[in-house]
Amino acid sequence: MKRRDWLAWGAAVPGAAWLAGGAGPVSAEVPAAGCVGSGDLGLVVERARGTLAVINTSRRTVLGGIAGLGDLSHASVVFSRDGGTAFVFGRDGGLSKVNLLTRRIDARVMQAGNSIGGAISQDGTLVAAQNYKPGGIKVFDARTLAQVADIPAEYEPGKLSRVVGLADLPGQRFVFSLFDAGAIWIADVSDPARPLLTKFDGVGQQPYDALLTPDGRHYIAGLFGEDGLVLIDLWDEVPKPRRILDGYGRGEAPLPVYKMPHLRGWAVAGRHAYLPAIGRHEVLVVDTASWQEVGRIAVAGQPVFVMARPDGRQVWVNFSVPDYDRVQVIDTPSRRIVKTLEPGKAVLHMEFTPRGEAVWISSRDANRVSVIDTQRFDTLAQLDIDSPSGVFFTSRAARMGF
Amino acid sequence: MKRRDWLAWGAAVPGAAWLAGGAGPVSAEVPAAGCVGSGDLGLVVERARGTLAVINTSRRTVLGGIAGLGDLSHASVVFSRDGGTAFVFGRDGGLSKVNLLTRRIDARVMQAGNSIGGAISQDGTLVAAQNYKPGGIKVFDARTLAQVADIPAEYEPGKLSRVVGLADLPGQRFVFSLFDAGAIWIADVSDPARPLLTKFDGVGQQPYDALLTPDGRHYIAGLFGEDGLVLIDLWDEVPKPRRILDGYGRGEAPLPVYKMPHLRGWAVAGRHAYLPAIGRHEVLVVDTASWQEVGRIAVAGQPVFVMARPDGRQVWVNFSVPDYDRVQVIDTPSRRIVKTLEPGKAVLHMEFTPRGEAVWISSRDANRVSVIDTQRFDTLAQLDIDSPSGVFFTSRAARMGF
Repeated sequence: MKRRDWLAWGAAVPGAAWLAGGAGPVSAEVPAAGCVGSGDLGLVVERARGTLAVINTSRRTVLGGIAGLGDLSHASVVFSRDGGTAFVFGRDGGLSKVNLLTRRIDARVMQAGNSIGGAISQDGTLVAAQNYKPGGIKVFDARTLAQVADIPAEYEPGKLSRVVGLADLPGQRFVFSLFDAGAIWIADVSDPARPLLTKFDGVGQQPYDALLTPDGRHYIAGLFGEDGLVLIDLWDEVPKPRRILDGYGRGEAPLPVYKMPHLRGWAVAGRHAYLPAIGRHEVLVVDTASWQEVGRIAVAGQPVFVMARPDGRQVWVNFSVPDYDRVQVIDTPSRRIVKTLEPGKAVLHMEFTPRGEAVWISSRDANRVSVIDTQRFDTLAQLDIDSPSGVFFTSRAARMGF
Repeated sequence: MKRRDWLAWGAAVPGAAWLAGGAGPVSAEVPAAGCVGSGDLGLVVERARGTLAVINTSRRTVLGGIAGLGDLSHASVVFSRDGGTAFVFGRDGGLSKVNLLTRRIDARVMQAGNSIGGAISQDGTLVAAQNYKPGGIKVFDARTLAQVADIPAEYEPGKLSRVVGLADLPGQRFVFSLFDAGAIWIADVSDPARPLLTKFDGVGQQPYDALLTPDGRHYIAGLFGEDGLVLIDLWDEVPKPRRILDGYGRGEAPLPVYKMPHLRGWAVAGRHAYLPAIGRHEVLVVDTASWQEVGRIAVAGQPVFVMARPDGRQVWVNFSVPDYDRVQVIDTPSRRIVKTLEPGKAVLHMEFTPRGEAVWISSRDANRVSVIDTQRFDTLAQLDIDSPSGVFFTSRAARMGF
C-alpha cells in the first residue's frame, strides 16, 4: 500500500485524454453513476396480466415490472448482445423491445396474428419471429424493429405452414421447422433483401419443436406425427436430414399427450442428450456421437422441460398435468432420480443461473417463483410473482440456439 | 398495430405500484436513462503503462481507459456476476476492483508481493488471488475487498510454495496447484474463518498451470518438471490424482522453452482437449473420456494459448518467440490448419466473443488489437491500444474456471 501507484487509484481517464494518449477510436460519454451490470438480470413472464417482472439473480429480488405487452401466454424472450435489452415474443404476434435497465418498452410492433417465439442472430443485429399465422418467419432490425425480411413458409401454392423450432446459426442464418409441411428450412439473411433458403423436405410428420446443440452443430426436431426425431448435422459439407430414435415408443400403447414438451440446447449434458419421451413417463438418454438411445430414466409424469444444469452433472425435469406440481432431479453419472421437489402447483418453467449454483422455478398457480440451491436443494428465496410462466436470464445472450 | 395494448407501450410500472400489484420484494430505484447493458464490454490490459482500455465488442471501439493499476505485466482479470465490475490481479500483488461502467477504480488493495492471477467463486461473493510471494492464496469479500481468508501454501515447515492454476469449483471452493511442492489443494471457504483443505501430494514435479474443464469436472495441471500432466476427476466420490499423457515427448530431444504455455477451460472442444505440447511445435489432441492422446497437430511454433472457438469447430493457436507474429487456426473435424494469420508482432493473447463470430487478438509490439471474423478471417476492426496483452470479456462471468 506504500507504492506510488496506490496514490493514483480512482483516477479514471476521460475519453479525450485517452485518445491523446494513443488509444484508438474512443467514445467520450461515460455512463452516469448508478448504472449497474446487466449480467445478473432476468425477466419472468406474468402470463395472466401480460406483464414482465424484472429480477436480479444476485439479490434474488424483483426489481420492478413492465406492463403493456399484450397476450403473454406462451411468450418467449431473447436478449441483445449487451444483455440490457429483451425482445419479447407474445402469442398475439406482438414483438416488444424492452429495456431491462429503465424498465420501459423502447419499441413494439404487431408482426403477426399468432406467434410462437423467436431468435436473435449471432452478431445480435437481427431478430427473427416464428409465426403460426401467417405461417413463416419475419426478420427485424434489432435496433429499430423495422422489418427487413418476410419469409412465408409456403410449402404448396397458397399454403403456409406453422413454424416451430426456430434457432440462430453461425452467420446471419436461422433454422426452423414447418409443422404442417414436415420440412426444415435454413434462411441465410446476410442480405435481408434476398434471403437464401435451403429446404429439407420430407423430414417426418409434424415437427413440433427443435433444439440446436450448444455447439451449433446438430439441429434436432421432435416429431409429433411419428415415433422418432429428425437430425441434421450442420457441419456436414452437404447437410441432410436423418431419422434418429425411430420407434422409441413402438409396440406399447400410446399415452395421451397433455402438453407438448419443449426442446432446446439445454438438453445436452456432457456426451448425452436427455430428451422428453413424448407422451411417456420417461426421459430418453441419447449418445450425441452415435445418436442412439443408450438408456431411459423413469420419471414422475410426462416430461415438459428436461434441462441440464450448466455443468451437466444434473438434469432437472418438470411435468404436464396432472403431475405438474413436481420437479425431479436426475444425477447424470448414475442416471438416478436424486430428488423430487414440490415447489408449488403448476410448475411451468425453470432457468439456471449462469454457473448453475441455483435454479429459478415458476409455479403458476402458487403465484410464486422459487430459487433453489442445486447442491443442497434448499429454497434460497421465494418471490411472489403473478401467474409466472417463462423465466429468462440475460446470460442467454451468450449462447447459441437460445 | 390497432390493438388496444399498442396504446400502452412505454408504460413502465414503478416499483411501488408493482408491490401493490402483488409482486414480491421490490427495489424502488430505477437506474438513470443512459445506462447500457454490460454483456458486450471487456478490458484490454495495457501492460507497459499499467492501464486498462475498456472496450465494446458490439461497436468494436475503445470506450475509455482506467489508470492507476500498478504493474500489469502478466495481469489477469475476473468479473462480477453482473458483469459490471472487474477484479484485476497485478503482478505486483495489487488487487483492484474496477467499475467498467463508470471506468473508475472502486477499491484497491496490495495483497502480496508477487501475484499471478485469481478467481471468483461460483456465487460471485468471494475473490481469490494466487500468489508467488508469499506463496499461497488469499480470499477477499468481492464487495469490499476485505480479506476474509489467508491460506499459505506451506508444504514443509516454513516453506511456502508458489501457487498456480487457481480455479473456482462449485460451492465456495477453489482448486490450485503448488509449483514448488508438486501438490494440488482444494480449499473450501464456505466458512472463510475456517477454510477446509483437501491436499493431494506427489502429483508430479512443478505443476506450472492448470485448467478446469468447462463442466467443472476435471482439473488438469501441466507439469514442467516431468513429461506428462496430472488429472483429478472431481466428480469421483473420492477424487484422486492420476497421470495422463505420460511421456508425450519421451525419446526425442527436448526443446528449449521460450515461454510457458497457458492452460484454461478453453482447451476443450467437443469430445477433445487441445493442449500445447510444452517446448514442442505441436498441439496434442486428447480424448476427454479416456484421457489418451489421439492425435498431434504440427503448428508453426511453440504454442502458448490453444483456444477453442466457443462452438468448438475451430482451435486458435498463438506462439512464443520467435514465432509470435503468427496465429494459426485448426479446423477440429479434419485437424488441419486452415489459416495462418499475421495480425502484428508479439501476439500475446486472444479472446472470442461469447457466441464466437469474432476473435480479438492483441499484438503488443504493433500496439494494436485486431478484431477478426472467425468464418471469413477478414479483419473487422483494428484498435490502437498501447502494448496490449490480456483481453478479457465480461462473458467470462458466466463460465466456470475463468
